[in-house]
Amino acid sequence: MSSNTIPPLKLVPRMHEQGYQKNQVDARRAWTEEQTGARLAHVGSGTLDTEQWRGNIENPIGVAQTPLGIAGPLQVNGEHADGVFYMPLATTEGALVRSYERGMVCLTRAGGATARVYQDENRISPVFFFENVGTARAFARALPAAFEDIRAAAESTTGHGRLLRLECHPLGRQVIVNFCYYTGDAQGMNMIVKATEAGCRWIMEHTTESSQRPQRYYIFSGMNSEKRASGFLMAGGKGKKVVAGAHIPAALVQAYLHVTPAAMVDIWHHTMLGHVQANAIGYSGHYANGLTAMFIACGQDVANVANACVGITNFEETESGDLYASVTLPSLTVATVGGGTALGTSRECLALLGCSGSGHAPKLAEIMGATLLAGELSMGAAIASGEFVDAHETYGRNRPQ
Amino acid sequence: MSSNTIPPLKLVPRMHEQGYQKNQVDARRAWTEEQTGARLAHVGSGTLDTEQWRGNIENPIGVAQTPLGIAGPLQVNGEHADGVFYMPLATTEGALVRSYERGMVCLTRAGGATARVYQDENRISPVFFFENVGTARAFARALPAAFEDIRAAAESTTGHGRLLRLECHPLGRQVIVNFCYYTGDAQGMNMIVKATEAGCRWIMEHTTESSQRPQRYYIFSGMNSEKRASGFLMAGGKGKKVVAGAHIPAALVQAYLHVTPAAMVDIWHHTMLGHVQANAIGYSGHYANGLTAMFIACGQDVANVANACVGITNFEETESGDLYASVTLPSLTVATVGGGTALGTSRECLALLGCSGSGHAPKLAEIMGATLLAGELSMGAAIASGEFVDAHETYGRNRPQ
Amino acid sequence: MSSNTIPPLKLVPRMHEQGYQKNQVDARRAWTEEQTGARLAHVGSGTLDTEQWRGNIENPIGVAQTPLGIAGPLQVNGEHADGVFYMPLATTEGALVRSYERGMVCLTRAGGATARVYQDENRISPVFFFENVGTARAFARALPAAFEDIRAAAESTTGHGRLLRLECHPLGRQVIVNFCYYTGDAQGMNMIVKATEAGCRWIMEHTTESSQRPQRYYIFSGMNSEKRASGFLMAGGKGKKVVAGAHIPAALVQAYLHVTPAAMVDIWHHTMLGHVQANAIGYSGHYANGLTAMFIACGQDVANVANACVGITNFEETESGDLYASVTLPSLTVATVGGGTALGTSRECLALLGCSGSGHAPKLAEIMGATLLAGELSMGAAIASGEFVDAHETYGRNRPQ
Amino acid sequence: MSSNTIPPLKLVPRMHEQGYQKNQVDARRAWTEEQTGARLAHVGSGTLDTEQWRGNIENPIGVAQTPLGIAGPLQVNGEHADGVFYMPLATTEGALVRSYERGMVCLTRAGGATARVYQDENRISPVFFFENVGTARAFARALPAAFEDIRAAAESTTGHGRLLRLECHPLGRQVIVNFCYYTGDAQGMNMIVKATEAGCRWIMEHTTESSQRPQRYYIFSGMNSEKRASGFLMAGGKGKKVVAGAHIPAALVQAYLHVTPAAMVDIWHHTMLGHVQANAIGYSGHYANGLTAMFIACGQDVANVANACVGITNFEETESGDLYASVTLPSLTVATVGGGTALGTSRECLALLGCSGSGHAPKLAEIMGATLLAGELSMGAAIASGEFVDAHETYGRNRPQ
Repeated sequence: MSSNTIPPLKLVPRMHEQGYQKNQVDARRAWTEEQTGARLAHVGSGTLDTEQWRGNIENPIGVAQTPLGIAGPLQVNGEHADGVFYMPLATTEGALVRSYERGMVCLTRAGGATARVYQDENRISPVFFFENVGTARAFARALPAAFEDIRAAAESTTGHGRLLRLECHPLGRQVIVNFCYYTGDAQGMNMIVKATEAGCRWIMEHTTESSQRPQRYYIFSGMNSEKRASGFLMAGGKGKKVVAGAHIPAALVQAYLHVTPAAMVDIWHHTMLGHVQANAIGYSGHYANGLTAMFIACGQDVANVANACVGITNFEETESGDLYASVTLPSLTVATVGGGTALGTSRECLALLGCSGSGHAPKLAEIMGATLLAGELSMGAAIASGEFVDAHETYGRNRPQ
Repeated sequence: MSSNTIPPLKLVPRMHEQGYQKNQVDARRAWTEEQTGARLAHVGSGTLDTEQWRGNIENPIGVAQTPLGIAGPLQVNGEHADGVFYMPLATTEGALVRSYERGMVCLTRAGGATARVYQDENRISPVFFFENVGTARAFARALPAAFEDIRAAAESTTGHGRLLRLECHPLGRQVIVNFCYYTGDAQGMNMIVKATEAGCRWIMEHTTESSQRPQRYYIFSGMNSEKRASGFLMAGGKGKKVVAGAHIPAALVQAYLHVTPAAMVDIWHHTMLGHVQANAIGYSGHYANGLTAMFIACGQDVANVANACVGITNFEETESGDLYASVTLPSLTVATVGGGTALGTSRECLALLGCSGSGHAPKLAEIMGATLLAGELSMGAAIASGEFVDAHETYGRNRPQ
Repeated sequence: MSSNTIPPLKLVPRMHEQGYQKNQVDARRAWTEEQTGARLAHVGSGTLDTEQWRGNIENPIGVAQTPLGIAGPLQVNGEHADGVFYMPLATTEGALVRSYERGMVCLTRAGGATARVYQDENRISPVFFFENVGTARAFARALPAAFEDIRAAAESTTGHGRLLRLECHPLGRQVIVNFCYYTGDAQGMNMIVKATEAGCRWIMEHTTESSQRPQRYYIFSGMNSEKRASGFLMAGGKGKKVVAGAHIPAALVQAYLHVTPAAMVDIWHHTMLGHVQANAIGYSGHYANGLTAMFIACGQDVANVANACVGITNFEETESGDLYASVTLPSLTVATVGGGTALGTSRECLALLGCSGSGHAPKLAEIMGATLLAGELSMGAAIASGEFVDAHETYGRNRPQ
Repeated sequence: MSSNTIPPLKLVPRMHEQGYQKNQVDARRAWTEEQTGARLAHVGSGTLDTEQWRGNIENPIGVAQTPLGIAGPLQVNGEHADGVFYMPLATTEGALVRSYERGMVCLTRAGGATARVYQDENRISPVFFFENVGTARAFARALPAAFEDIRAAAESTTGHGRLLRLECHPLGRQVIVNFCYYTGDAQGMNMIVKATEAGCRWIMEHTTESSQRPQRYYIFSGMNSEKRASGFLMAGGKGKKVVAGAHIPAALVQAYLHVTPAAMVDIWHHTMLGHVQANAIGYSGHYANGLTAMFIACGQDVANVANACVGITNFEETESGDLYASVTLPSLTVATVGGGTALGTSRECLALLGCSGSGHAPKLAEIMGATLLAGELSMGAAIASGEFVDAHETYGRNRPQ
């Protein structure tokens, strides 16, 4: 078809009440098959309750199925998670589950991974516009005095969110105001966008002095770095800030990872240089692998991997010649309520970790931190020992066919 | 449980030939249920052929099901994709499908999105170590002369990969050598790691002069930025470099996006400032949303979203007062063969786009580029028009319950 | 000379009391001429009082002379600087002074540049090491309670510095603690390093509980970004955070800059894209040019240009079709006391601005902010109008010789 | 003075032929004194030949004098620099010269620093605008065939510059074209801007097919990162790419730096983490200090410190327990002809290094690389040993007065 002729548009059928009944989903899938000539049998064979999807997806036609494996045991010594866990991982990358499993067993033999949550919040960064830099400065000076009123306005929209503080970042004659919230067990973006909208409206209505009055605002400035990598994430504030670490005796490093602690430090040192050469944000072996597999399995917002995979892995040789390994994850956006967490396989996977429902988000964050630590150990060791290629030959898709 | 008592480890059962038969998968799932007390009914009800999973996952226990919606119609005017498409999107983020759909309809009414692939390659970045900076310099000087031999060694391991060139990046007494490949329709990491390993071995064996001999190497230096965001990705070389753009008349911008072209440029301008303030890599409204939903649906390596979401969106007002919008995606790592592309729902979703199997990766890249463009239009407009919160009220999870 | 033979070292003569008397400086210069065969007549003809150099330089042999030009008039409407200024600029880059002058005249005709200081501080970022991530977490939890004691210890070493707050950034089993100070009119690094050392010692002595005791610390972690560019500087805290802006009527833009406001916005838009493509930190036309010329003239620590040149320029077209231009400088490290500010030409240049001595650093910061704004206007216009090459033909070194 | 009253502007006197005669400079200085009330005696006592300043500065009123110290001996084992050198350093930061001197003596005792130049070029990055992404793609495809013609056009403007290659970076419907040049012993920006302007005009005149014709261009896109820090600089192309390194026996590390090689690696490791946490570009202890002091002394364009200070320092412990230290400087923009290199003290300082005039830029680059290596050793050791504060107490401005 030429680009010059505009086709008559065949819109996706909207259906009654947006079409979430099973037969409506089936009809829409059939319509899609008809338009495209494709057969969507597997897509149509999901077991999730389609009526439950309202608020999670539009124009549903079925499900995507991703293979799910299990890795463990992983001993986690956290303030919220304390015990042995088996992590569900949804992936199609061969060797990934085996790699995480290896790190988990090594960690567990060493007594487990210690995990801690430092900060637990999420943020929206609206930007306010002023006539000139003087007005903007006056606004920023006056804002702290209005905090309690703005908080009241923002929190009036939510039962769970708590506005913790406001941070001003001037940029010429505009001021970006970070609204920082505690969001409980939810990832919370919808919640806090709504709250922030209310806060912004309060500001617009009540800042009446012309010397400091904003002319307008946008609810997003881009600064909050939702679903993207940025240096700003290093300081935290977009999800849970989690640190996980473990002391691993040299003998266990050798037994499970087939290298010495010194070799682990050496691979850290030299791949760090590669990260700096590439101007990467943060440093990790492959956070994105583990995060993606956990997020798909556990019904998280998978696009948050873009921010959650920003962090820093560290390997150190201790004075006694052992290995101390850690991961620092400033932006782990995880939830146990809301979003996709209640749907079929997601709810089951969260239940498998003892993390389904209210009160479990910090626990989930600690377990995920420990899991990523396991993955870093295994990946670092595979490169250091030269076994990486062989492992992917064995478990990946390089087999002769 | 105290961190001082090491539990007796309950390893995940390995089973005969790694356990990919359906009954073995069921048994492993039952074992998992027993260990954790969770019921995994939905996990166990997948329709994929488990025997096919070898090379994609280990320790399988079932599937994760993600709701799948359909968005379109999307007219793409590419060199590989030319026609109208409906894009499958797997997500649990309410409003996402509706948002992309809106952008697609707008683009299609405007005659469609033009898409182009600039570069099509993938790379591995091993690092070689030398006695001193003089030896390293001599090695880098001599390497170009050995290119044909290294290429022969690398390509001997693969039927599809082609070594295009080598690039040297010195770093003190080490030299990172980027091996740049054409990988056909595969994402190709396994393929080119194996090829690069062969190339590195050739170098180690044949660089015998002591004045330029490497002492050792690591197959990865971290510089290639696989599954992470980095500035280096901007120059391309990690997947397809795709540009998609469209000229949209002001009347259509108003009709579908509810804003003027000038308002779109204004939101671009001010959210760009927020990105710069946050020290983000690249600029986009929400590439990660669309990428993740497409990658899960189409059996891509979802962790590659970490690199694929690096790119730059641009909105400009034309001299005639219309909108020109574009996305530039330097690192779109997509495949139509290998990885998870052949599995059940993935194969069906690729088929739905006419992209299943060999010869279709550039087509898929163009369609995905156009899809992301649709998403950028819709997101930018939602913020500019102030409709963002309302849209998420309507389609997201903020409904009173 | 071969690298294998180690020469007998000819050390630079140390002399009595480090040798700051004029005749000692002359003798050292003569010794240098003898070693190298160079004639150092200009170097030896400085008029500064060499005895005054103790604390500023070691092994002195004379002076470097840099040509000094004057640019103005520049009307500044600040909270500290209010009036017309002429800025001394030391440079050898042809066209630089003329370019800044053009922007200044344009700004002044438009009523001047408004300038504001948002934040005024400097910081040191020591890192503390712990046995494990649990101990580190406990330390970070307990630290706020010790703030007053740490402040007392830190401030005991300085008459001017004030410890404003402590910020903890965990990184595995280490914690970086940012010590944030007000440093008065000094750049203050020496002052606050000494104060922070005292604060760190207090922490080491008084954190006696084994559950949160640091094992050791380094006074620098690199995080404070002294004399280097980083994303972290965007949030401020390394010097004065200054914003300067101006509303410039379209007629003046045309008259002085030879372009329209729309053309200025267009050049901003497209060179911003180039910055993002290059993964630059911040955005500016040429902050480093103005900063370097001002810093050399005014006896600032010129190496601080590396951090001070991080910032963001913005050009906007107003509703009335005029130009609003601004610069945002989060890390302007300037001083009017200490360092090289009291020496000969530096003191004279500061006096020329009414900024010599105590009480004038914020004023100097505002004037410098306005100067950089002038430079951004002129540079942006030169590129937009296509006059850049001609200007450098006229004033630069491309003349036929 | 209120911001509402526009003062009558007192412009700086222009004078006959721009006023470079000594009496004109004196008159302009007297005028400045009159306007500001400041006495500019030291400013007026420079010994440089003011007539020579044409092309280096406008509105001259005298000179800035910066104290100049000497550090050495420094043994350099380069391909261009081979011997012992004493480096002139212009600074007012106490302890800087002593610090570099310490590192130099240590290096020299160890047999010297090996230095190598990898790449020697500079670049301009114009951006071309097209009707749509299709036209832009066609342009980029066709450009390589026109290289020889473009080169001829560009090189017709310069006796020294050589156009090495063109690199296309698409960005929506625009294409940034990097013009990469060899510039001989000059920094070369003026030279290559002029050449690139000629190349761009050739492109505009000769690209007549509407399917690939640019509508317009800007001579700068910002991508070349002149005088700013960016990730793009890591790949080189903006000045000389220089690596310097040295093997230093443990005994010499201890004797001169008062630490062990392991302690040097430890401080590297932990300050690297601080750099990554701050999202810095590259890693160094204090490149900007040495670069600034050398650039002021040697008449370089000091604003280039902004790009030149991007690089990577590395410390490694060798198998024999010694230290291997290196610096990698991808963007060392140095010159021995043009700019300020011929003026009085600059020419003398270059002569002191045997680097004045044609043919010496690579030599200067190697010496500067070795100097920065010395500074990194000394700074790293000062932090690792805990002597940093004491050194600044002794040599800096913290003395009781």
